[in-house]
Amino acid sequence: MKSVNCMVAQSGGPTAAINASLAGVIQAAAVSGKYQICYGAVNGITGVLSGKYLDLSEIFKETDRLEKLKNTPAMFLGSSRYKLPDAEKEEEPYRVIFEQFQEKNIGAFFLIGGNDSMDTVLKLSDYAGKHGIDIRIIGVPKTIDNDLCCTDHTPGFGSAAKYIAATILDIAHDTFIYSVKSVTIVELMGRDSGWLTAASVLARNSYNDAPHLIYLPEVPFSTEQFLEDVKEQLQVRNNVIVAVSEGIRNDKGVYLSMEQPSADTFGHMQLSGVGKKLEILVKEKLGVKVRSIEVSVLQRCAAHLASETDQREAFEQGQHAVALAAEGKTAVMVAVRRLADQPYRIQYEYEEIGKIANEVKTVPVEWITEHKNDVKAELLAYLSPLIQGEIELSYQNGLPDYMDITHLIRESIPGTQTS
Amino acid sequence: MKSVNCMVAQSGGPTAAINASLAGVIQAAAVSGKYQICYGAVNGITGVLSGKYLDLSEIFKETDRLEKLKNTPAMFLGSSRYKLPDAEKEEEPYRVIFEQFQEKNIGAFFLIGGNDSMDTVLKLSDYAGKHGIDIRIIGVPKTIDNDLCCTDHTPGFGSAAKYIAATILDIAHDTFIYSVKSVTIVELMGRDSGWLTAASVLARNSYNDAPHLIYLPEVPFSTEQFLEDVKEQLQVRNNVIVAVSEGIRNDKGVYLSMEQPSADTFGHMQLSGVGKKLEILVKEKLGVKVRSIEVSVLQRCAAHLASETDQREAFEQGQHAVALAAEGKTAVMVAVRRLADQPYRIQYEYEEIGKIANEVKTVPVEWITEHKNDVKAELLAYLSPLIQGEIELSYQNGLPDYMDITHLIRESIPGTQTS
Repeated sequence: MKSVNCMVAQSGGPTAAINASLAGVIQAAAVSGKYQICYGAVNGITGVLSGKYLDLSEIFKETDRLEKLKNTPAMFLGSSRYKLPDAEKEEEPYRVIFEQFQEKNIGAFFLIGGNDSMDTVLKLSDYAGKHGIDIRIIGVPKTIDNDLCCTDHTPGFGSAAKYIAATILDIAHDTFIYSVKSVTIVELMGRDSGWLTAASVLARNSYNDAPHLIYLPEVPFSTEQFLEDVKEQLQVRNNVIVAVSEGIRNDKGVYLSMEQPSADTFGHMQLSGVGKKLEILVKEKLGVKVRSIEVSVLQRCAAHLASETDQREAFEQGQHAVALAAEGKTAVMVAVRRLADQPYRIQYEYEEIGKIANEVKTVPVEWITEHKNDVKAELLAYLSPLIQGEIELSYQNGLPDYMDITHLIRESIPGTQTS
Repeated sequence: MKSVNCMVAQSGGPTAAINASLAGVIQAAAVSGKYQICYGAVNGITGVLSGKYLDLSEIFKETDRLEKLKNTPAMFLGSSRYKLPDAEKEEEPYRVIFEQFQEKNIGAFFLIGGNDSMDTVLKLSDYAGKHGIDIRIIGVPKTIDNDLCCTDHTPGFGSAAKYIAATILDIAHDTFIYSVKSVTIVELMGRDSGWLTAASVLARNSYNDAPHLIYLPEVPFSTEQFLEDVKEQLQVRNNVIVAVSEGIRNDKGVYLSMEQPSADTFGHMQLSGVGKKLEILVKEKLGVKVRSIEVSVLQRCAAHLASETDQREAFEQGQHAVALAAEGKTAVMVAVRRLADQPYRIQYEYEEIGKIANEVKTVPVEWITEHKNDVKAELLAYLSPLIQGEIELSYQNGLPDYMDITHLIRESIPGTQTS
């Protein structure tokens, strides 16, 4: 009898915890006794289309390599932005994918990713269902944005939240050293949901109440009100720290970053982000010392400050995906249900993929204050458990000792690509 | 007999290690038996001028608080940008300062800071010398820029270098996940010296050779050559990572950030930094996917990734300052002499302050490659020891457990200031 194998891929944007989910799949597949080889498709679904695989069972047969993988940021297998067409319109990619699955005798395919990846899980499982192909297709959630519906929170978010909160606390220490009035604007990721920006609230502690203003994309943003808010803050403190989402929109739903700025107000800033825009606005209108900081990709790839809770749950969700496949489930995504905030307790479940794909979970408006410039205690209670605990990271030569990604770098050398 | 006391202040820009030097002064002053009270002037020399002090001997009588202080970024005592006038032109501040010293019976004054602070040490010790005032005035070096002369390297630089290298490595992992061609430009601090940007070279390891291009302010920058360099790199790899100093200048010595950009080439970017300018240039001229990242203040205040070597040496230089005062030295700065790179060995010395103040130590041009786009092995050998080792940082509620800076925050509330 030909042995049954499984395959896993990663997709979408990087996080500090996505390799922990990969490690969970590899570990659970190995101990399940159900799969002889766990293949890894390189660069997401495009790796399946082009037949580019790694034998993960072989690469990670030593457990210490699996530990190192957990701590490595971004995708060990590489990512992809390829979106599957509708099977009715273009069936060819589906034929290729399922031929590849058949050739490798794949009994289960695990895709670790965010919204777009769950769309792929939906399409592949629909196709398999319609054509009576016997394969389990399971989604493993991942996104720093925390915007996947039907699950309490997503792997990757907790580590990003921890990095953001720690960074805001560091910036507070950096800012309070001068007795000169100043405004510091920190721009955070999250185009359509404010979870990451909301996480800045975690920086507040017994002595620090920064950020003093928090603006999320879930409620309309008014530059006039913003200036009033900052002015008010400057009356009660010298150093004002503001956390703002890249995705804030005006009352017409237009992104501030897209708004055609008037030449007088903004100068010539159409190419800049929200933080820079607000910096110029504050400088011009309030005449105070102001700086903007764009935390940029660091918030998604800084593995040295990963949340242990996040990493552990990411690993366990990878394991749970294998368990679901073993139970015969398909067309589902691993989900987390929170049982309590304090002491924090969760359980792993699953959800039909059809309910999840292409939906966006935003911050509940009732968790935002009436003045739209701060978040409420309920949101803090939700966030706090997710950043708890620190990972044990090995260092070599003064830097984090990550899993070697030579195979990805080789892929990136023109001429050596097989696809 | 009235007891003799000492006083310490912090000045200039923040670092992750400047409080370790403060801790070194406090600890050595306590065990020396020479000083009854170690005062801390709040907000640098302005704290002396306005009589704002903390009793550090009292605050830090418990050793565990001193350990926490070591790990706390930026200045526990606050900073100041106040520059002492020439005593010949304006003697009043000097009279006030030395009256304060006499009133508190200060036998030694320690100022932890960079270039400007060493200018203050020079002026104060000159004044004391001319007026026969019996007080030791000692500089304790500190600057992430590593640009103080007459010492091998400065406390704060090693931690900033470690953060920069780790961040570049994280960005490399983040970047290599896509097989689409891309250029990532990372802008680093250092207006007049390239040490911080050079530290990006430490990110290279057995599998990663990013950053692929490094541009320092010590040699002229040509945008034409830069575009050629990037083009050449894009021929041998898909994902090019560039480290660039905020202080790069053209062959006329004009900062790129100040250069009046032509409307055609740069659009309307006169308000942006170097990274953003180069991003737009690459986009327009090479038409490739490009992103710029400004690491900003995070590189100077991210204490969660401090270098143990840096922190330990910062502490020891604080202790050494007290030892120098005990030996009767004045008008000097603590200095480090390197005895060997590998195994790394140093010894603490001192240098006459007159040789140091207002001098800038830049990266030796012979440590930069002929093509002006990379650094040589000698520079790597110099840098590597400085980022070794990790600090033991306590966490509370998922975030670094820093020393409370309530007193600084209170200072920053309008109406409560005493100055």
